Amino acid sequence: MPRMSVASPITPQPPAPGTAGVVAALASRFGARLSTATADREAHGHGEGLRDVFAPHAVVWPETTAEVAEIVALCAAALAPVIPFGTGTSLEGHLQALAGGISIDLSRMDRVLAINAADLDCRVEAGVTREALNHAIRDQGLFFPLDPGANASLGGMAATRASGTNAVRYGTMRDVTLGLTVVTAQGKIIHTGGRARKSAAGYDLTRLYIGSEGTLGIITEIQLRLFGIPEQISAATVQFPALEHAVEAVMAVMQCAIPVARIELLDTLQMQACIAWSRLEGFVPAPTLFIEFHGSPAGVAEQISTVRDLFDGFGGSQFRFAETTEARSRLWEARHQAYHAARGLAPGKDSYSTDACVPISRLAECIAGCRAEAEALRLTAPIVGHVGDGNFHMLVLFDPEDADERARAEQLVASVSERAIAMGGTCTGEHGIGLHKLDALVLEHGEPAIAIMQAIKAALDPDGIMNPGKTVPSGRIPL
Amino acid sequence: MPRMSVASPITPQPPAPGTAGVVAALASRFGARLSTATADREAHGHGEGLRDVFAPHAVVWPETTAEVAEIVALCAAALAPVIPFGTGTSLEGHLQALAGGISIDLSRMDRVLAINAADLDCRVEAGVTREALNHAIRDQGLFFPLDPGANASLGGMAATRASGTNAVRYGTMRDVTLGLTVVTAQGKIIHTGGRARKSAAGYDLTRLYIGSEGTLGIITEIQLRLFGIPEQISAATVQFPALEHAVEAVMAVMQCAIPVARIELLDTLQMQACIAWSRLEGFVPAPTLFIEFHGSPAGVAEQISTVRDLFDGFGGSQFRFAETTEARSRLWEARHQAYHAARGLAPGKDSYSTDACVPISRLAECIAGCRAEAEALRLTAPIVGHVGDGNFHMLVLFDPEDADERARAEQLVASVSERAIAMGGTCTGEHGIGLHKLDALVLEHGEPAIAIMQAIKAALDPDGIMNPGKTVPSGRIPL
Repeated sequence: MPRMSVASPITPQPPAPGTAGVVAALASRFGARLSTATADREAHGHGEGLRDVFAPHAVVWPETTAEVAEIVALCAAALAPVIPFGTGTSLEGHLQALAGGISIDLSRMDRVLAINAADLDCRVEAGVTREALNHAIRDQGLFFPLDPGANASLGGMAATRASGTNAVRYGTMRDVTLGLTVVTAQGKIIHTGGRARKSAAGYDLTRLYIGSEGTLGIITEIQLRLFGIPEQISAATVQFPALEHAVEAVMAVMQCAIPVARIELLDTLQMQACIAWSRLEGFVPAPTLFIEFHGSPAGVAEQISTVRDLFDGFGGSQFRFAETTEARSRLWEARHQAYHAARGLAPGKDSYSTDACVPISRLAECIAGCRAEAEALRLTAPIVGHVGDGNFHMLVLFDPEDADERARAEQLVASVSERAIAMGGTCTGEHGIGLHKLDALVLEHGEPAIAIMQAIKAALDPDGIMNPGKTVPSGRIPL
Repeated sequence: MPRMSVASPITPQPPAPGTAGVVAALASRFGARLSTATADREAHGHGEGLRDVFAPHAVVWPETTAEVAEIVALCAAALAPVIPFGTGTSLEGHLQALAGGISIDLSRMDRVLAINAADLDCRVEAGVTREALNHAIRDQGLFFPLDPGANASLGGMAATRASGTNAVRYGTMRDVTLGLTVVTAQGKIIHTGGRARKSAAGYDLTRLYIGSEGTLGIITEIQLRLFGIPEQISAATVQFPALEHAVEAVMAVMQCAIPVARIELLDTLQMQACIAWSRLEGFVPAPTLFIEFHGSPAGVAEQISTVRDLFDGFGGSQFRFAETTEARSRLWEARHQAYHAARGLAPGKDSYSTDACVPISRLAECIAGCRAEAEALRLTAPIVGHVGDGNFHMLVLFDPEDADERARAEQLVASVSERAIAMGGTCTGEHGIGLHKLDALVLEHGEPAIAIMQAIKAALDPDGIMNPGKTVPSGRIPL
């Protein structure tokens, strides 16, 4: 697999000739809701992670699905690129406007349209963030569990097939989304799925748009499953002498079907960072699990008892349990601060975040291999993992002024993908493909499957205006 | 919505001129594994449900994915239709060879390729049935929970997005499938998904093929999630004075997040049939729930206690609990025999089975409306439901010699779809579209979404050889 140059993953394309006309038309139609200010364009020309900026020509803030459709229809007529924007927290270069075009910022589409407590579902506009949704539903005893870390928009979470810490129990956006409203590349409005819990009616367009990263259409509304706030929430941490022991303990938990709500792994380096950053007392720099339990009081007590017995068998020590909200918050503080703690290992450096997901039986071996490679490449790269799913993240620190160190960081990230794929896993469990993992996607699925993805892209977006250059390699492979 | 004629849903098309040549080539290549015998052709020209037979020109029994690819490539060159066949238990006319062609019977692809107890997954060929899989994994303490009633093949279950009684706890084929091997319309072999529990790598081809009913490609291998056999399995039945009370009781169970493994509703007419058929003692003809609990002994005891309290509040009576395998089997006997019991209400009549799925808050109203319409149309049509999902089935009995009664049966089935769609639900929770629900599909999703499905079909199967006439309406709607 050829190494990608992350600094300039593909050459920026010349903008479509009609783009200037589109900007003028949008300015006339949307007034102050259209901006060509440099600050707005730059802010919309990158996400989190690597900060290589490719600015769009303009940013527009629609307030309804009909307005999004109107904008896309204008862009389609002029062949101008369209890049949807939620909160700007994606990690794999999803937002870079490689050929300029129009960034459609959905943050003003922030209405919770319906909450159905009886059916445990709701309908939201794409710009509603997960925290805003939880705020809106809390007084009805409901919560939306998915937590990717950032306070992302639900439209962005759907578009990138996000998940996070609670996925081991509650699933990913793929699982909790019942239906979508989508603006197509032709500027038409379609509705997928519905409010039924399950359906066998036709092709699963909902799942096709989830994870399509704005390359097939723009998600403007989402019908989501909700959950009752658990009667009892408890948390625990436990430390292990070695990574394999921690992973084996998690495998035992999964095989016993203990419905843990979160089960997070921090490796030795990450714990060292967290102990320093959060001034943790009583922890040693060793592989550590953070666990959360949801259920009835008796159910949670039984889960804790079973988990503790299992962990004892794998050398777990320094158990800490917390049942009150305050104690739980203290316990999870280190996990929540993991990113800042990791950055604190090398102040002034940039970070390159990557993730991968493997069958859990291969997880310890995969992480150990990645760790050894980081050391061989002389890189600081702590690891945290949603370990119940076999998903882990590596944060590779590098000096942006040191071209050699950046190249080594890119090499390490590529090798994490390759290692995971070789173990039957995937190059990304939840961050997506964006710009940076196009080569890994081909390696993972093989050219005949990529040809199918390309055929779908060409069928739904024949002019290639929807977030061009992302998610699917552009060099067409015949079916 | 125009009513469909179920007797002849669409006019059979003239066979492609090259079909005879394909049959000759396949006979030469596959010898006795190719049949043109009338009995074989007729047996492969329909599923369960309505028995309108459209026989293929020939049936072929491949034994490997490579052989399936070879057959499809031959058919593609000659533009001959290809219809995949599992166990023949689909219900919506998925198997009818409307323009003749080649039925590819996958029943000899019956190998369990890998069982990974540590990761709770397995890989099977498409012809493995769910009972055969459970037999193969039982001694490792594992089970595959999905149970659509029939001993269907797992390939067929994936192709129709099947689910059944355990879906409320364990999900549908959409949820438990990790990856697929598919033969495309061009006769190429692709691999989708993998062994990772989650992935954000590219378009979700796995979910696109699941439920595509053989119209986009042929599923030949499936990577599936497995589950540990629960430590404790208990069952219960309870009767209610009225349907609304039973449904409200189920809603309370779902809102309390009690992880019931099955929760099945039989309506008064179905219970009347079951009491007569299974000589049930102590039951009255009234709406009845059958429930199964999985978990630890303490967990199951807690679930039962909570459920019983909830049911008391909704007028539930005549509780029966069963913890041993034998007692549980006796309790579930009536549910398992529901189809035969229903047929027994009118011996000699044919039956037309339909299903729909609605938000659970609308379920009682939907079922009551369907029941009233059946009575107005003077039809016997008992109802059973996977009520935790809002999914229900109606079995409409009709005399095949009585054209008027058959027309009324068709009218009732169409109105079940329309009623469910009007309530935000779907025309099918688990049976699929096949031939019979094409009009309902358009009503449910709207023409702009159907245009997207048609564009995908045209992109992946430009010559329309894959199970033609099914799943997506053929009259092309512009994007």
